[in-house]
Amino acid sequence: MSEFDLIARYFVRPAHPKNRAALGIGDDCALLTQKNGMQTAISSDMLVEGRHFFAGADAYKLGHKSLAVNLSDLAAMGAEPVAFTLALSLPNVDEQWLAKFSGGLFALADEHNCELIGGDTTKGPLNICITIFGQTAIGLALRRDTAQIGDDIWVSGTLGDARLALGALYKEYELDAKVLNAASVRLHTPQPRVALGLALRGIAHAALDVSDGLIGDLGHILKKSGLGASLNVDALPIGAMLQKQSLEMRRRFTLAGGDDYELCFTAPVSRREAVLGAALSANTPVTRIGSIEAATGTRLLDSDGKSIDLQLTSFDHFA
Amino acid sequence: MSEFDLIARYFVRPAHPKNRAALGIGDDCALLTQKNGMQTAISSDMLVEGRHFFAGADAYKLGHKSLAVNLSDLAAMGAEPVAFTLALSLPNVDEQWLAKFSGGLFALADEHNCELIGGDTTKGPLNICITIFGQTAIGLALRRDTAQIGDDIWVSGTLGDARLALGALYKEYELDAKVLNAASVRLHTPQPRVALGLALRGIAHAALDVSDGLIGDLGHILKKSGLGASLNVDALPIGAMLQKQSLEMRRRFTLAGGDDYELCFTAPVSRREAVLGAALSANTPVTRIGSIEAATGTRLLDSDGKSIDLQLTSFDHFA
Repeated sequence: MSEFDLIARYFVRPAHPKNRAALGIGDDCALLTQKNGMQTAISSDMLVEGRHFFAGADAYKLGHKSLAVNLSDLAAMGAEPVAFTLALSLPNVDEQWLAKFSGGLFALADEHNCELIGGDTTKGPLNICITIFGQTAIGLALRRDTAQIGDDIWVSGTLGDARLALGALYKEYELDAKVLNAASVRLHTPQPRVALGLALRGIAHAALDVSDGLIGDLGHILKKSGLGASLNVDALPIGAMLQKQSLEMRRRFTLAGGDDYELCFTAPVSRREAVLGAALSANTPVTRIGSIEAATGTRLLDSDGKSIDLQLTSFDHFA
Repeated sequence: MSEFDLIARYFVRPAHPKNRAALGIGDDCALLTQKNGMQTAISSDMLVEGRHFFAGADAYKLGHKSLAVNLSDLAAMGAEPVAFTLALSLPNVDEQWLAKFSGGLFALADEHNCELIGGDTTKGPLNICITIFGQTAIGLALRRDTAQIGDDIWVSGTLGDARLALGALYKEYELDAKVLNAASVRLHTPQPRVALGLALRGIAHAALDVSDGLIGDLGHILKKSGLGASLNVDALPIGAMLQKQSLEMRRRFTLAGGDDYELCFTAPVSRREAVLGAALSANTPVTRIGSIEAATGTRLLDSDGKSIDLQLTSFDHFA
């Protein structure tokens, strides 16, 4: 199958009334028109076989996850998904793989009304690079550098189940098959918190998505805002499967797990009701886990306010 | 070196008054604001080691070429470069390589006032994925599906030298070292025809960039416009190094070479003076090479109008 046949068969779809691109797949560029008063939010993620997913990973779930991690970046900006490009390097044309991959990709894309508008396909080691486009009203995007002293720190959903599954798949430990299967759902098919990100516009001060571990990711908000934080480690929302594990594992995987794709955000104490209302409207649980403070660094406390000393490292893509 | 150090050292640059992104590297997304009446043109290309460039390729030239192929897509739409994202998979952190790669990348980016606004870096087989953003007035982009019967067909610059160099590097034949060096400039550091693309807005009917060979690429315009063409093969502008080769090689490499990154475009006969004026203003030579006709297919003629029969295939990224 030629490159053009491959694109036509698996990635070109019939025109849809909800499509917002002025020109999509098939020209040198796609064309997007922005509404007045709006900005385009842009993010790009590259997923490499053996690094971000196992060789032989289920192609449908991989299609889902490739787009989910990008949608999560839009969620973290409070941006509404619009469109994406897909650049795909494949070792060979495996039609079964392509049918599954595009199936998982488009199922999630349709859920978020996000249109594939272009990209590239080539032969090479399996590599998936998606660049996504969202829209947000000028000045309303949820940035990392805008936390303020006294803000509550919140996190959506639960943390740690994806890391729990990953450790078992890496043979760090064994898990009961049912536990592993349930935890793996979080690892392989994360649900980007797009609705929550949109609902938090005008309420949250700063936000990002938790992909490399809470401590490390929160650290980006703190560094960019020039502030510090205290975290109540006992308040962290623990994944349903992780709850059954040891205290040490629960703390390590909630604080420095990775692959959670939850939103961590800060908001003024005066807006607690508004935050809970946004969470309700987005049908996404949120938990208050700490406070932004003037002193830099992150202080880990237990529920009695006593300091906890943990050696934690965030995931590094070159480690 | 961590991922964040790597990005900070090689890819984050001081703020510049010409930067047009509302928010650049360092958040979940970059933010771009579009001027009223303008559209964003978007293109994505993925370059894989061993497929699009040789293992051990000069990193400075690779940085140049990675961006050049994307700028060429903007040129082919008549879009003005604005910004780009870079997703980069590297087998290891080689600081000398990174310094050279980013040097070549930014030299060309600065030439076109095109800002790096985000992306991703990870460990893996060498893979470079750039997504580029340009702007064009609504309705003025140069598309592929808008050629008209009777249009002249034009091509910029010269064709075939890149393919000539590639064949020698693949040991298909030997070339004199001086010839190879001169031809290699076209292969490794193509100059995207951005100024010409901009100058052709409102003059050309259809356009694309010649990256996989003239016949195949022109075929996209013909197919999308539902038309055909006659080409005067003897009129094709031949690369300076290719001119010294056999007639068979000259014809094959101008018609089906690849890696030229010239613009092929159509314009009405009545606008010949305007095309030449645009070429002059862009300081880019153009040559009239044929005509758009109602009958589908591409007819190859010599300068006497006699039919030439050549077996040619376009480059396919999965062949």
